Amino acid sequence: MFVDLNSDLGESFGSWKMGNDDQILPVVTSANIACGFHAGEPLGILKTVRKAVELGVTIGAHVSYPDLVGFGRRNMDLSRDELIADVLYQISALDGLAKVAGSKVQYVKPHGALYNTIAHDQAQAAAVIDAIKMYNPELVLVALAGSNLVEQARAAGLKVVSEAFADRAYNSDGSLVSRRLEGAVLHDSAFVASRVVSMLKNGGVESIDGVFTPIQADTICLHGDTDGALEMSAAIKAELVKNNIEIRPFVNKA
Amino acid sequence: MFVDLNSDLGESFGSWKMGNDDQILPVVTSANIACGFHAGEPLGILKTVRKAVELGVTIGAHVSYPDLVGFGRRNMDLSRDELIADVLYQISALDGLAKVAGSKVQYVKPHGALYNTIAHDQAQAAAVIDAIKMYNPELVLVALAGSNLVEQARAAGLKVVSEAFADRAYNSDGSLVSRRLEGAVLHDSAFVASRVVSMLKNGGVESIDGVFTPIQADTICLHGDTDGALEMSAAIKAELVKNNIEIRPFVNKA
Amino acid sequence: MFVDLNSDLGESFGSWKMGNDDQILPVVTSANIACGFHAGEPLGILKTVRKAVELGVTIGAHVSYPDLVGFGRRNMDLSRDELIADVLYQISALDGLAKVAGSKVQYVKPHGALYNTIAHDQAQAAAVIDAIKMYNPELVLVALAGSNLVEQARAAGLKVVSEAFADRAYNSDGSLVSRRLEGAVLHDSAFVASRVVSMLKNGGVESIDGVFTPIQADTICLHGDTDGALEMSAAIKAELVKNNIEIRPFVNKA
Amino acid sequence: MFVDLNSDLGESFGSWKMGNDDQILPVVTSANIACGFHAGEPLGILKTVRKAVELGVTIGAHVSYPDLVGFGRRNMDLSRDELIADVLYQISALDGLAKVAGSKVQYVKPHGALYNTIAHDQAQAAAVIDAIKMYNPELVLVALAGSNLVEQARAAGLKVVSEAFADRAYNSDGSLVSRRLEGAVLHDSAFVASRVVSMLKNGGVESIDGVFTPIQADTICLHGDTDGALEMSAAIKAELVKNNIEIRPFVNKA
Repeated sequence: MFVDLNSDLGESFGSWKMGNDDQILPVVTSANIACGFHAGEPLGILKTVRKAVELGVTIGAHVSYPDLVGFGRRNMDLSRDELIADVLYQISALDGLAKVAGSKVQYVKPHGALYNTIAHDQAQAAAVIDAIKMYNPELVLVALAGSNLVEQARAAGLKVVSEAFADRAYNSDGSLVSRRLEGAVLHDSAFVASRVVSMLKNGGVESIDGVFTPIQADTICLHGDTDGALEMSAAIKAELVKNNIEIRPFVNKA
Repeated sequence: MFVDLNSDLGESFGSWKMGNDDQILPVVTSANIACGFHAGEPLGILKTVRKAVELGVTIGAHVSYPDLVGFGRRNMDLSRDELIADVLYQISALDGLAKVAGSKVQYVKPHGALYNTIAHDQAQAAAVIDAIKMYNPELVLVALAGSNLVEQARAAGLKVVSEAFADRAYNSDGSLVSRRLEGAVLHDSAFVASRVVSMLKNGGVESIDGVFTPIQADTICLHGDTDGALEMSAAIKAELVKNNIEIRPFVNKA
Repeated sequence: MFVDLNSDLGESFGSWKMGNDDQILPVVTSANIACGFHAGEPLGILKTVRKAVELGVTIGAHVSYPDLVGFGRRNMDLSRDELIADVLYQISALDGLAKVAGSKVQYVKPHGALYNTIAHDQAQAAAVIDAIKMYNPELVLVALAGSNLVEQARAAGLKVVSEAFADRAYNSDGSLVSRRLEGAVLHDSAFVASRVVSMLKNGGVESIDGVFTPIQADTICLHGDTDGALEMSAAIKAELVKNNIEIRPFVNKA
Repeated sequence: MFVDLNSDLGESFGSWKMGNDDQILPVVTSANIACGFHAGEPLGILKTVRKAVELGVTIGAHVSYPDLVGFGRRNMDLSRDELIADVLYQISALDGLAKVAGSKVQYVKPHGALYNTIAHDQAQAAAVIDAIKMYNPELVLVALAGSNLVEQARAAGLKVVSEAFADRAYNSDGSLVSRRLEGAVLHDSAFVASRVVSMLKNGGVESIDGVFTPIQADTICLHGDTDGALEMSAAIKAELVKNNIEIRPFVNKA
């Protein structure tokens, strides 16, 4: 058994710092790196890419709507052509910086509102899928486990990996419990770590209303922006090792 | 004899149009395409790249300071690392869009204030040169004919082509007459066209104070943003053809 | 009888020009001036404000979502607090520039996607209404004639004027025919001019499917961004004068 | 004897936090609030303004070059008209938000590169001075103690207060020791606190090369962005109180 651990990185912007990249990078196998649309500016992105390459972490493009002030968390109704071009521009910019650092972009993970929207909105999803295929059909798409996007992207010929969230509660239909509801976010590191292991071993988790819910998890998203998150990430990694679940980049999986 | 004709393209931004790309693209052999820092947004850049590829025009990255509202025409004192990363990000973004369109970036021409500054500021020039070498040492740099930059970039191992301006008056030291002075810009198409031919044949022009001034011109910059400019560009091209001066991309020159 | 004529102005951005402000300003009585979020930058806005003041044209804040590249035409799901603050910031900035020019903001007209959204989305509408009330409860809101917004804003205690479009076809429920449908936009200046007069005299227009549709029009929106639009605006104005319909700013109406 | 304490506030941007506004606001008498050009976005600015009003802290506009990614710390050669309009726009936006919060802008402190540049560049200084006079000639300008700007602004009819830095070493000509040199920044809270008191009592400080250097200090700039800075600010305040130096807003001084 094996799993990939990913995290959102390079989310500082100019003089503003966000996240603990230096501490989370050694923990993960895949780095979703901001491309300048929701976070990141060229110098910060380049530094993040260099660190990832140094540590042998796989580089993915964390593409977003063009909304810096909203951190890419607000829905925007871009036209199909705009969305394709925006995704292409972001992958391209990151891929060039990765090339300079001796690596390359190997996957794409949409960020924030775009991630959530394309989980169900087939038109925007198609634009993202087509952009990836136009740029490099070998790139892998990271999609919410259980979402329509997984099948839609596979049907379009793209390689897809399913992403689960270690510290989030699930509804019995496999969707995430809204952050606005009580119990949506789990805070106990030990519980979360063992939950990740059982999710991988059993192919699912207990939903918030107590039903076993299948979750296919190729990669687990870790957060690095709080001290508690770092501790939780370390706990998850340790628990995986203890249970002989190999941690390796999904891009090497096939 | 041969010469390249270049023009600044893709300078629209969102709903705002600038230039007559459709009319100037068929005239030139090299397209300096905006990368989003002084002009251009992903969809507009992609469309421009596609048109250039369709017409077989060589694609160059028109890199700039990050100053959209000032159109890259205001000096900014970026640090060396910031400038390197900004140049890399722009070349990368454009190169990826060019790849999607079936081509690639083959040269870099700095824009506006950056172009003028690195003609004499060796520190900023070194940052631009190093960025280009980091990205792809085969990329050609377009530099102001007669400027320090030509020698500095060649000494650093970069391929450089010298650019002359068809419609600008020159001082006797080879520098351009400031736009603020009377007579800086030439408006007579026939005169400008014959001046370009004599510049190429004689290796120089008569300066504003009547002295022969050597100007090495590998590429001539044409403007496309006014009707008069289009007419002038056509006149220059016709005069070159009449004088058996071949028009071909400088990237194929060596 | 009287009516106000308004137009969207100050929509250039830096080096990019849009519209024919100099030609449309003398025609209108109310100027919806961009505030920097979908168009306009400080110097351009200040110049537009000065011209409006010179010509005695009433100044309104043309507030928008923060989306320069999309020209404010793409929906964005801002939070209530974000939208309130964005509207306040834009009114404030314009009001200060107007003060410097010897005038002040007297009304607010939301732009583009925000205009269309708040015509029916009561939550976003409430945020805009509350922002206006917080800034200055005497400011008038320009709302789409027949939309829910008219009643919602009046119920909230705001002064509202209803806006009709001279060159647009209407559905029989009073809504605008979508631009995507045939016949949505009217192009014949003489027809449009007489239609405006009959709309004012009869309190409505014939809908696209031939039914009389009541339209309460306090102000007519004129376009200034094409030559045809300028001619149409002149024709409308001439027809109003010929029919003894006074053209005067709605802010002086009460 | 009395003195004002000021600090740079509202420097977060969207999801990115900067500074400890909640902790530094109770310490100071004047708040230099970012206006959106180097930091701050409408909602964040509004929140900061409300807190300042709640605590009775005087509000000043911390105006900047338009350079978010560079945090306003990079010189830009704006034209006179551009700089005037940029300053007006920023003061206006902040003043409107202050009005909504029940207060108003009472002074202007240029930020970062603009602050340093206008201390000696008379052309840019004149643009800033003229913008302030155009907006409201009663606004006070905060200028570097001992700089040319103090006299230039007073000669132009503006009220000026001189600002000194508690934790910075001075050259014997009254200028600040460059941050690039050893000893430029002082870190010992107790020493800095007693130095502020002696600066006020003696009208100057010992320069880095041991000479008494006159420094006229109407307001002292405190930093709030590190824990050490908060402790130092508290120490300075305590030492002032102990020495019976009244802390009060400079705007009430005259």
